[in-house]
Amino acid sequence: MKRNPLFAGLSEKYLFHEVKTRVEAFKKSHPNAHVISLGIGDTTEPLVETIAREIKNTGHELETVQGYRGYGPEQGILELRKAIQETLYTKTPSVSEQDIFISDGAKCDISRLHLLFGEDTNVAVQEPSYPAYKDSSLLLRKKNPIPLPCLTRNQGIISLDLEALPDETLVFLCSPNNPTGTLFTRSEIEKLIQAAKKKKHILIFDVAYRDYAEDGAITSIYEIPGADEVAIEIGSFSKSAGFSGIRLGWTVIPEKIQYSDGKSVRNDFMRLITTTFNGASYITQKAGLTALGHEGRLKTLEQVHFYKENTRILRDALVQKGANVFGGKEAPYLWITTRFEKSWDAFEYFLHTGQLVTTPGIGFGASGEGFVRISGFGRREVILEASQRILQLDL
Amino acid sequence: MKRNPLFAGLSEKYLFHEVKTRVEAFKKSHPNAHVISLGIGDTTEPLVETIAREIKNTGHELETVQGYRGYGPEQGILELRKAIQETLYTKTPSVSEQDIFISDGAKCDISRLHLLFGEDTNVAVQEPSYPAYKDSSLLLRKKNPIPLPCLTRNQGIISLDLEALPDETLVFLCSPNNPTGTLFTRSEIEKLIQAAKKKKHILIFDVAYRDYAEDGAITSIYEIPGADEVAIEIGSFSKSAGFSGIRLGWTVIPEKIQYSDGKSVRNDFMRLITTTFNGASYITQKAGLTALGHEGRLKTLEQVHFYKENTRILRDALVQKGANVFGGKEAPYLWITTRFEKSWDAFEYFLHTGQLVTTPGIGFGASGEGFVRISGFGRREVILEASQRILQLDL
Repeated sequence: MKRNPLFAGLSEKYLFHEVKTRVEAFKKSHPNAHVISLGIGDTTEPLVETIAREIKNTGHELETVQGYRGYGPEQGILELRKAIQETLYTKTPSVSEQDIFISDGAKCDISRLHLLFGEDTNVAVQEPSYPAYKDSSLLLRKKNPIPLPCLTRNQGIISLDLEALPDETLVFLCSPNNPTGTLFTRSEIEKLIQAAKKKKHILIFDVAYRDYAEDGAITSIYEIPGADEVAIEIGSFSKSAGFSGIRLGWTVIPEKIQYSDGKSVRNDFMRLITTTFNGASYITQKAGLTALGHEGRLKTLEQVHFYKENTRILRDALVQKGANVFGGKEAPYLWITTRFEKSWDAFEYFLHTGQLVTTPGIGFGASGEGFVRISGFGRREVILEASQRILQLDL
Repeated sequence: MKRNPLFAGLSEKYLFHEVKTRVEAFKKSHPNAHVISLGIGDTTEPLVETIAREIKNTGHELETVQGYRGYGPEQGILELRKAIQETLYTKTPSVSEQDIFISDGAKCDISRLHLLFGEDTNVAVQEPSYPAYKDSSLLLRKKNPIPLPCLTRNQGIISLDLEALPDETLVFLCSPNNPTGTLFTRSEIEKLIQAAKKKKHILIFDVAYRDYAEDGAITSIYEIPGADEVAIEIGSFSKSAGFSGIRLGWTVIPEKIQYSDGKSVRNDFMRLITTTFNGASYITQKAGLTALGHEGRLKTLEQVHFYKENTRILRDALVQKGANVFGGKEAPYLWITTRFEKSWDAFEYFLHTGQLVTTPGIGFGASGEGFVRISGFGRREVILEASQRILQLDL
């Protein structure tokens, strides 16, 4: 059996796997080191009580004759689709619950969207960005995405020019952005939508960090008129409600988005998921429903606020030591440059001198060279200790 | 944006979706009908108590600082991989926990395996079979699989000849088979493995119904020497433990399976899942661990026995009415022919005359024409009522 040639085009290790390998080697040679991770962006606060209670209730429900449920709809249970529509899309009446597809997470839906549009479609990716956009494009569609730098060490913040792309490009965007922590303004998004209409692009707008945005920021692309003709939106419960281990996300595909032959994109996505997916776990869907209820929303937003406060503490220490710091106000990530020219050199310095794990910016794309990403997820006492260590470093 | 041409090759509706549409139309025109579903193979017994208890425990664990878990390994938690190895692969020492990949269900893994092997690979599918093998091949890889009929109305049971296939074919097999309810014997599997070695095929062996086999039957292909060089196995908790709504399965890729260039297939699958998937829900993984424990295994096998008894009750009624019945002894499905030449005609007769939903055999492939599949899942009182109705029919 011949090997799939698409696999040869990828590095053997996913970014976070390489980080893990280096950290393990360090721990082996420094067995007494107390390493703190500010690396992979993983939630650390326990599930809020009302969500945990709903998980227990659902466990009980499933052991009763009346409450047992087998296969659910691939698109997700209607109650949850309605709750997402009513809670997160209040300002965007064009989004209906029929446009919302529940999934087991944004990472999985990114891959599904690559499969939806087929191998000949051009792809562009805001850069730096979450590695899964590019890797899944290489792996599933042979397409090396066109990079759209939005922030580089030498040039600072750069506006994206979608008119320079070939016609009919699939454009991956993320706001608030992982890793830079920056987000698009209303007028920037208006320009993106105009360009998409003109050039027949489809925008994939990832709002996994929407709850970290400040009041008044754009948290759904559908707040901007015309977006429902050109934009698909991906959301996630991972960073908003601590669901990274129990898996829940969604994708919005408005009815108005059509192929050039007039066929519905939403219908094809339905065909794709009914063929390749069997829905997110019923237990997690019920937990998600509770996360969107009054108490669930209040308590999970308190956790978001807690992670933002963590990020502020780290930001203050970094600024005090002279690092050049972007982001961190509307995202749980700081994107910084230091005296090191190379990301991996800065990574090694943080690891060896501060016993701190960061993520090298180069892992998020070529324009990330020279940066490291610092995550604000962590228990408060750990973040305070990390901040003390940063104050001992020479950045 | 152009439409992905692969979608045009598929019918708009998945088999079970078409069945649902016809049933809904019937109910609308017969509002007083009491329709019983013997159609889609969906579990109906509540989760066993010990599994439900573990779901509640995990809900509690996740609301504590010590017990909270974020992202888990994409391959699944080690305890569950070990438990699968130690419980379900006792007779097959060649399978290690490193070969086992936990997933959110067999349907999802079928698609991932298509993506793994790339678009140029030939595909063959045992027929009749679960529609997802063929549909996902058409949708993801442009490949219309070569049908391998194993049971047809005119010719009865047919041995599969894998030597007649082109070299290096990916062959999807299912035993005990859905929908026919038949399973491969040891000598049949020996021949399949020999042919695979000779022709450099890779077999995808689906054992979703393994727990329905009688004592002494082959329930893993790795029981046969040499299988670990040519076979990938897919398993599921859906029909064994009632997990169809909470989503858990696994795939075994033995270390010895290599591409012609000597590279490891297992490594590429790891790369695929780390790029496109973030693991099954932690709650469901913990539930799966309990399902494999002493009490969990005992109680879930009692449920399997209950569904088999249901199937026997329906079988007796069908045989009494003169239907020609296959399967049902080692699977929860009966695969029958009646006086109707066409599957959809038989389907309509069952629906209109018996108010019984079946699944038309033609939906499982061309060689399924003339058959209908009858599922033994259901509450006992419902199955007894269905059996009484069958006795009133003219088959």
